[in-house]
Amino acid sequence: MAAHFALLIDPAAPDDERRDFADTFQAIDPTAPALSVGELSSQRGDGIFESIGVIDAHPQELEAHLERLAHSAALCDLPAPNRDQWRQAVAAAAAQCGTGEHVIKLILSRGVEHGPTPTAWVTASDAADFTAVRVHGVRVVTLDRGIDSTTSARAPWLLLGAKTLSYAVNMAALREAHRRGADDAIFVSSDGIVLEAPTASVIARFGDRFVTPAPGSGILHGTTQVSVFEHLATAGHETAYETIRTAELARADAAWLVSSVRLAAPVVSVDGAALAVDAQFTASLNRYLLTPRD
Amino acid sequence: MAAHFALLIDPAAPDDERRDFADTFQAIDPTAPALSVGELSSQRGDGIFESIGVIDAHPQELEAHLERLAHSAALCDLPAPNRDQWRQAVAAAAAQCGTGEHVIKLILSRGVEHGPTPTAWVTASDAADFTAVRVHGVRVVTLDRGIDSTTSARAPWLLLGAKTLSYAVNMAALREAHRRGADDAIFVSSDGIVLEAPTASVIARFGDRFVTPAPGSGILHGTTQVSVFEHLATAGHETAYETIRTAELARADAAWLVSSVRLAAPVVSVDGAALAVDAQFTASLNRYLLTPRD
Repeated sequence: MAAHFALLIDPAAPDDERRDFADTFQAIDPTAPALSVGELSSQRGDGIFESIGVIDAHPQELEAHLERLAHSAALCDLPAPNRDQWRQAVAAAAAQCGTGEHVIKLILSRGVEHGPTPTAWVTASDAADFTAVRVHGVRVVTLDRGIDSTTSARAPWLLLGAKTLSYAVNMAALREAHRRGADDAIFVSSDGIVLEAPTASVIARFGDRFVTPAPGSGILHGTTQVSVFEHLATAGHETAYETIRTAELARADAAWLVSSVRLAAPVVSVDGAALAVDAQFTASLNRYLLTPRD
Repeated sequence: MAAHFALLIDPAAPDDERRDFADTFQAIDPTAPALSVGELSSQRGDGIFESIGVIDAHPQELEAHLERLAHSAALCDLPAPNRDQWRQAVAAAAAQCGTGEHVIKLILSRGVEHGPTPTAWVTASDAADFTAVRVHGVRVVTLDRGIDSTTSARAPWLLLGAKTLSYAVNMAALREAHRRGADDAIFVSSDGIVLEAPTASVIARFGDRFVTPAPGSGILHGTTQVSVFEHLATAGHETAYETIRTAELARADAAWLVSSVRLAAPVVSVDGAALAVDAQFTASLNRYLLTPRD
């Protein structure tokens, strides 16, 4: 959905002793021109972002998203985000969201080419209606991500753990999945290990154990995956970060793609092979994820 | 350098029988807001670009750039660019460039999120002064690109042959090179094969032969590399697209990074090992590249 609210924020505002950063925000028309053609976000996909689910005006897992924004900034040699400032910008955007589901996006760009400072903005949009996909699930295809599972540790300049604005490949993978008659993709490494979906984390259940790939393997650490694991552990389930081989995925007892806005989508097939869906359990996961929480 | 001229163009303008597309351009202030925060170029690095060198108001190798723009569009499932329209937009931008060296950039974005059409713009800027680097050259480090040399053919969704706006990794590689005390980087595949620089092609001389990696190996086909090869062939030199192993590069008799604006920069060292520079030959290459030509 198109954004209904946007704030430009000045990420270079001095973090002096003050508590109120409202004067570093500027509400703008989200459909009007706001960025110059010199923006490095546009020219180079050079910046980072977060997408936060909002339930009844409450931004979910805000601190985890701010933590990951800071992690992405460090990997990309961008200035450390001023968390008080971003927290207040998110609160201002959340105040513009009514009941129901919304999305708040945080974007920190390297700024205008040869300009003095980064550019940053926050938007709020209605969420699409994902009710059906949370029940009926997604057919996924596995797509080679090119890298092997040791690449991330060896080559930090590939920014594999950063949530950058350079998402052209993620978008191309979704188009390829659609071309193959599927709804979504799961990236796998060239040495046959499950990584992540283009815009979601993968969780699989084998017997009584819930497993997800470790973040060190070159994937983003999913905020929703972490939240689901906490929820599962609280309910007495065993959870683990583990290597999942591509061939094993189709033999999982169940699997989900989890993300901040679509939440838990059960995987109904992998490369055409059907996977069982535990409708009741999936519904309980989504009830949890739809509960406002920090 | 910051752009001194910019045109927004309407890439969805119907390609009817007409010859004049001037009414599909809109000159804008390149430093003023022009793009909305909904732009997918900014949010996702989702689009493609070209950077064209301009010598004394003449855009160099324009047709090769338009050809590559069309190739990138096809790989990214973007509508085929209307070449007459882009050609005229480039002419309008070139008319704003005086004598000396300039850069014209073409950008085709997927457009505004959920919007009806792509967005496109053209900018013109002064070129930076690359006189010194064309003489004194660049110290390069080799950096693992993660992929192996068979990846591109196997996984077209990785967009390895497309010049997309998702350049965060290319920019991170340059920062890593600077951190290591070098000026530039050369990406190599995980199986030890020379690919390309983050914003340039690699040409190496071994004895009497000039070689460059084949485009099928997951790199962009460099317009300047093609032009240099034509020039070399005309002068009676042997040229070839060949696999260059990383270890061989340091044993080359000479090497250059070639690109549309910086032109031919001799490589003076690879990972700290000195490479010979043929100053006279390099100067002749740059004289050629500085000559207005189609």
